[in-house]
Amino acid sequence: MTQTIDKMLIANRGEIAVRIMRTCREMGIGTVAVYSEVDRRAAHVLMADEAVCIGPAEATQSYLNMDAIVGATRATGAGAVHPGYGFLAENAEFAERCRAEGFLFIGPEPGVIRLLGDKTAARKRLSAEGLPIIPGTLGGGASLEEQEKATLAMGYPVVVKAAAGGGGKGMRTVARPSELEAALTSASGEALAAFGSGEVYIEKYLEGPRHIEVQVLADTHGNAIHLIERECSAQRRHQKIVEECPSPVVDDTLRHTMGMAAVNAAKAVGYTNAGTFEFLVDKEMNFYFLEVNTRLQVEHPVTEMVTGVDLVREQIRIAAGEPLALSQKDIIPRGHAVECRIYAEDPANGFMPSPGTIQTLVEPSGPGVRVDSGVYQGWTVPMEYDPILSKLITFGQDRQAATQRMVRALKQTVITGITSPVPFLIDLLESEAFRDGQVKTDTIDTTLSDWSPTRPEVEALLAYVAHDLFGQAKATSPEGPSAQPSPWTQLGAFRI
Amino acid sequence: MTQTIDKMLIANRGEIAVRIMRTCREMGIGTVAVYSEVDRRAAHVLMADEAVCIGPAEATQSYLNMDAIVGATRATGAGAVHPGYGFLAENAEFAERCRAEGFLFIGPEPGVIRLLGDKTAARKRLSAEGLPIIPGTLGGGASLEEQEKATLAMGYPVVVKAAAGGGGKGMRTVARPSELEAALTSASGEALAAFGSGEVYIEKYLEGPRHIEVQVLADTHGNAIHLIERECSAQRRHQKIVEECPSPVVDDTLRHTMGMAAVNAAKAVGYTNAGTFEFLVDKEMNFYFLEVNTRLQVEHPVTEMVTGVDLVREQIRIAAGEPLALSQKDIIPRGHAVECRIYAEDPANGFMPSPGTIQTLVEPSGPGVRVDSGVYQGWTVPMEYDPILSKLITFGQDRQAATQRMVRALKQTVITGITSPVPFLIDLLESEAFRDGQVKTDTIDTTLSDWSPTRPEVEALLAYVAHDLFGQAKATSPEGPSAQPSPWTQLGAFRI
Repeated sequence: MTQTIDKMLIANRGEIAVRIMRTCREMGIGTVAVYSEVDRRAAHVLMADEAVCIGPAEATQSYLNMDAIVGATRATGAGAVHPGYGFLAENAEFAERCRAEGFLFIGPEPGVIRLLGDKTAARKRLSAEGLPIIPGTLGGGASLEEQEKATLAMGYPVVVKAAAGGGGKGMRTVARPSELEAALTSASGEALAAFGSGEVYIEKYLEGPRHIEVQVLADTHGNAIHLIERECSAQRRHQKIVEECPSPVVDDTLRHTMGMAAVNAAKAVGYTNAGTFEFLVDKEMNFYFLEVNTRLQVEHPVTEMVTGVDLVREQIRIAAGEPLALSQKDIIPRGHAVECRIYAEDPANGFMPSPGTIQTLVEPSGPGVRVDSGVYQGWTVPMEYDPILSKLITFGQDRQAATQRMVRALKQTVITGITSPVPFLIDLLESEAFRDGQVKTDTIDTTLSDWSPTRPEVEALLAYVAHDLFGQAKATSPEGPSAQPSPWTQLGAFRI
Repeated sequence: MTQTIDKMLIANRGEIAVRIMRTCREMGIGTVAVYSEVDRRAAHVLMADEAVCIGPAEATQSYLNMDAIVGATRATGAGAVHPGYGFLAENAEFAERCRAEGFLFIGPEPGVIRLLGDKTAARKRLSAEGLPIIPGTLGGGASLEEQEKATLAMGYPVVVKAAAGGGGKGMRTVARPSELEAALTSASGEALAAFGSGEVYIEKYLEGPRHIEVQVLADTHGNAIHLIERECSAQRRHQKIVEECPSPVVDDTLRHTMGMAAVNAAKAVGYTNAGTFEFLVDKEMNFYFLEVNTRLQVEHPVTEMVTGVDLVREQIRIAAGEPLALSQKDIIPRGHAVECRIYAEDPANGFMPSPGTIQTLVEPSGPGVRVDSGVYQGWTVPMEYDPILSKLITFGQDRQAATQRMVRALKQTVITGITSPVPFLIDLLESEAFRDGQVKTDTIDTTLSDWSPTRPEVEALLAYVAHDLFGQAKATSPEGPSAQPSPWTQLGAFRI
């Protein structure tokens, strides 16, 4: 049953490819990197045992190019493929092709990826398996009277949504019964124009919801456990930027309820490997299932810090056919972990990507600090991909200690040449909303949208070279020492 | 009762000063560094809020200069002093002077430091309090017949030691009863010549013992707990080089017995703050008390990784008069941690110090890796002090995972310009003795004394610049990819 893996191809790039290779190295598994032409000198290529160019910069021709990746796996004799996150990680066809070629795919069965990849169908299916979903009429040709009745039952406000659509088109928020009819009419008209179908449905509107997700591990022998939840409500433009484990608002009862709901749903659909069940949680702490991510998450390290489990190691073990070594009672969360995503992006300009060359890079270290980096000083961040540079993760005995440590680590970080969100993250972590655990999915967009840096970037660079200045400070005698302010203080800049 | 600490002077240098400052920063405590003239640009100086020169390079005139350090504390208005380890950390007079000046000393009471600083007296006192010590005659003017009888009772082999001495003078190992009389005579003669006293005593000889120590925390309210043990048997020239938590040979019963023995002894002598009870453990897993280190240990991070406790934070809280926030049942060890000390020293030349300038420094990172560093690229390691550069600490779900991670982290480490023990440490960690948990205090000196590097240092540098070479490797087409070995592999060099 258990397969031996001698060599693995990592079908990804950047920090996640590096992170996966590290566990491979520790497990004695050889690594094959793939790279596009602009990534020839990328960190993940330098770190691999072997590396194969799979095409030009455009992702469709390289990191999304199944032929090239399957060919590279065959050519290098790799027996397994880890897809990371993004790119082909949730592509059922890719998983199928790997299987057909005899490569071990580090993820769930292709059929399960396909089922859960259709987000609407997955919600219906898992709702039938007992996962709560946001109350709604789920489409259909009901009469206005029936819709008014159903809406009153779920309670206002509600939102009218296009069945075929997304991106806000054919969507109307409705605050009171008197507005429902007009909203249905106008939403339906807009949906018809945008998607060719005027079908709309009504869903309960959640005000400033939290995004909370449950990490699941399931083996091929029918065992499944959860590794508690992550709080991912700190988002800008619907993209997570700071994540925590555990959530500051989930108590043990809710933790158990959400966790077991995810475990049971995973078992019901034959889920295997690592997966994440995403939920929206409202003010009353009702939770509603959103979707399953059938892969490793960007934010998986906070779970690793709090549970002590190496999720990539477990993914590989499960794919090789080994039974889970851990049972639910072995998952004893301890302390608190926070992750900050460090992107090449400008928080003072709508978080627009800011690709370019990293001139200076000083990454933090010390107690309770983990850096998952995919770049190095001198590396030019290409504009073709998600501009994530690295992730900082800190651990503390409690949420306050983990947060204080993150602020310390962010202040130790120096990135010049490109714009990074580090100064924004410091202000966010030190904000009252974050300190009180009150950041919702819309908090950054609504209350921090006009943020601008108070710590000019140039100061970070000055701080980095400050020892040259400091060398000129005069020594004072042992008899009458007088304090010399450190250059870091003098410059008002980043400090460890 | 509880004091607020606004500013702390760290009466130390290098990695431990940096490590203490990090927790101070996280706790919102301002930091004052002290430095000797050669340390003007040292990492701990750059990181502090304020820095005071306390004298010339010689430690006696700077880091051991109480007048200068007390003066610097007074001048900067620091309300507390953390001594780190080494230098004045176990100096009762320094603790007393701090107290007389009204500075909070982060450590035990001066009287307790003094009591435990006299190692022979401490052993007698704590033996009376119930700690087992190595069986012996503890000096005295007994007749040969009495000595023969006592020796038979404790069992051969034994060692005859000079009561007044140390350093191997007046010491004889005795394998059988027929050799005892001659050994007593010659040892006594040698002791008389060396120390002016011919008094000798007999102690049970432990063959290849283990060095295992228990971490204790005790507050000023009478509460004390232990944070399980550390295995510190990997030593060269009686100096620890690799430490682990937990010990690979201590079971839960022995863990509890040793731990509670240390806690009870700590309570018996009124011990407060963090302290370490050191034991020798023989083949039959009998443990014998050696001494108490009344300060933070170099190897404290392995305990932090496995227990989740920040020992420096606890030290500061205890000194401020706060009661322990943790009780014994809160200490739930999880997983395994390994620490490697990275010194500027040459393992192929008797571990002689190799001070000089660090030309290249690449420190490892990623999941489960902690780096406590006190240096930076370009820094010149002075010859005046203990040449520790940094410590690498790794965590894993079990001992094997932690060890594999340490090997990965060591292989990611690049240090050039000075000689480091990194290649030696890789070989040690990969040795059968280490893998089997069978390294004793004499293993390195007896079985690895003729070690020489198989990975020339220059390769590490080549690996570091390999991306320049790699940039010339030609891209292969997506249709027919052929593997390009990574430059790291080509060079047979260090790899992540």
